[in-house]
Amino acid sequence: MSVIAVGTMAYDAIETPFGKTDRIVGGSATYVAYAAANFVKPVQQISIIGNDFEESILNDLRSRGVMTDGIEVVKDKPSFFWSGKYHLDMNSRDTLVTDLNVLADFKPVVPDSYQGADFLMLGNLMPSVQKSVIDQLKVRPKLIVLDTMNFWMEPAFIDGLRENLKLIDVLLVNDSEARQLTNEYSIVKAANKILDMGPKYLIIKKGEHGALLFHENHVFYAPALPLEDVFDPTGAGDTFAGGFIGHLAKTKDISFVNMKTAIIVGSAMASFCVEKFGPERLQEITKNDIDTRIQQFVDLVQFDIDLV
Amino acid sequence: MSVIAVGTMAYDAIETPFGKTDRIVGGSATYVAYAAANFVKPVQQISIIGNDFEESILNDLRSRGVMTDGIEVVKDKPSFFWSGKYHLDMNSRDTLVTDLNVLADFKPVVPDSYQGADFLMLGNLMPSVQKSVIDQLKVRPKLIVLDTMNFWMEPAFIDGLRENLKLIDVLLVNDSEARQLTNEYSIVKAANKILDMGPKYLIIKKGEHGALLFHENHVFYAPALPLEDVFDPTGAGDTFAGGFIGHLAKTKDISFVNMKTAIIVGSAMASFCVEKFGPERLQEITKNDIDTRIQQFVDLVQFDIDLV
Repeated sequence: MSVIAVGTMAYDAIETPFGKTDRIVGGSATYVAYAAANFVKPVQQISIIGNDFEESILNDLRSRGVMTDGIEVVKDKPSFFWSGKYHLDMNSRDTLVTDLNVLADFKPVVPDSYQGADFLMLGNLMPSVQKSVIDQLKVRPKLIVLDTMNFWMEPAFIDGLRENLKLIDVLLVNDSEARQLTNEYSIVKAANKILDMGPKYLIIKKGEHGALLFHENHVFYAPALPLEDVFDPTGAGDTFAGGFIGHLAKTKDISFVNMKTAIIVGSAMASFCVEKFGPERLQEITKNDIDTRIQQFVDLVQFDIDLV
Repeated sequence: MSVIAVGTMAYDAIETPFGKTDRIVGGSATYVAYAAANFVKPVQQISIIGNDFEESILNDLRSRGVMTDGIEVVKDKPSFFWSGKYHLDMNSRDTLVTDLNVLADFKPVVPDSYQGADFLMLGNLMPSVQKSVIDQLKVRPKLIVLDTMNFWMEPAFIDGLRENLKLIDVLLVNDSEARQLTNEYSIVKAANKILDMGPKYLIIKKGEHGALLFHENHVFYAPALPLEDVFDPTGAGDTFAGGFIGHLAKTKDISFVNMKTAIIVGSAMASFCVEKFGPERLQEITKNDIDTRIQQFVDLVQFDIDLV
């Protein structure tokens, strides 16, 4: 089982109430890879980087079973750069700088060695770029997961996003994006409308309030682990996605029942991500750490009830 | 097993995005009684009402096993009246009118027939009024649950509230109240500080995002059921409290494990409350409705995971 992960590999400057970093590796595909590689190998990366991207990060990813054949290196430009500042509630942030750099020219090419992958994770990118990857795959993956954001729901891009929704299996958005996409305030109504747009499964991420999985008439509520401090939420959504698709690929089971478990795995991975700046914590953790954390999620929600 | 429920019995005028009602029965003790009476009898009500309170409501409550000996009737004043308007998100509301009326003179008297109750539910009231009930009980109940609100955390009342926290077992607050009480933004840090103030158990209500139970180093996350429409959230917190204490009294078990279940029961009751204006929906539902709803909560959170 292999997973193709498409997205950015970038540098971020982040300010949170707990601290500040001027330059730390980031990007959606970076977080997906760090999370997914705990569960499945290879993770087949498709991205674009500039002349400033550290070889040591690529080597670290390779050592974890991440294939880098699909990462285009542009010699005369820097990598995508994003800078943002989080508010106290950590659910909202201001973007200070977005330097597209190499990302402006990103035309992903799927290497021959990636053909036949069973899982495709499309990180948040312009809808036409996401679609070009689907179009290049000779055999449709068993499961296509797509992440997107409010920006692609604006008039200039919404048609492309709507087209993609007909081609995928699982859509990942946050609660405000679900509302924006459907013009419905009620999350349940919004979810029903989105499922009518194409995806068979919808995951609505609610940050510290957990995540909801919708499928047909079923709904599953995964809590987030209450943490003393959320140090830096950057990448938590992508880390969640990586844990989610990693677990599905590892278990080779894309049923609703197994997706519930995959969401718990994704939530556990995301709970590590926010403990330090950037992917730092994801670089440290062991299988034992992950198992312990998942057990915390089991303890967090389990209860006994006798309906007699 | 009996439960004493102390609180308001009142009339409300409510406006929500879904409609408007000029005058509907409300009050914390009313909601607690409607919810708890599904699980335990008698519920021993302590409240104060005016000359306008409908006898038909009292009779309805009596028919459900609610004792009304502790309800003082004031002949020359109207009942407490509250009017409020909810915003689209239903988590915030503006108070339009607060007419204390009879509530200004509320000096609860515990009837002899209530002495020896095992459970005490102190609804949101001035801390000194809550304390006067504790002081009148000849035998301390097995479990004292206290609900309060931001208003009693202001300088004029906070000392009384802090005194009460040393006397009770379970504190019920919402997330913003937990933050206000402790001056901590992190819910986990706030919870730890509150547990240091006296209560052995803390329940933090998060509305549509569920509820958290804290006890020593343990935490339990109960989801809220995602609903198509939240018609009117008035009384949801009190209904939650009624279901919670009702389940504990019914099962005669105040362990942490059983409190988790009690929170699910409370959440299920609250999910009915918000479906119609006031306590209307609580007046309709059957045991079968409740069992079905609780099963929905089980389905909402259960997942299988194999850590091998």
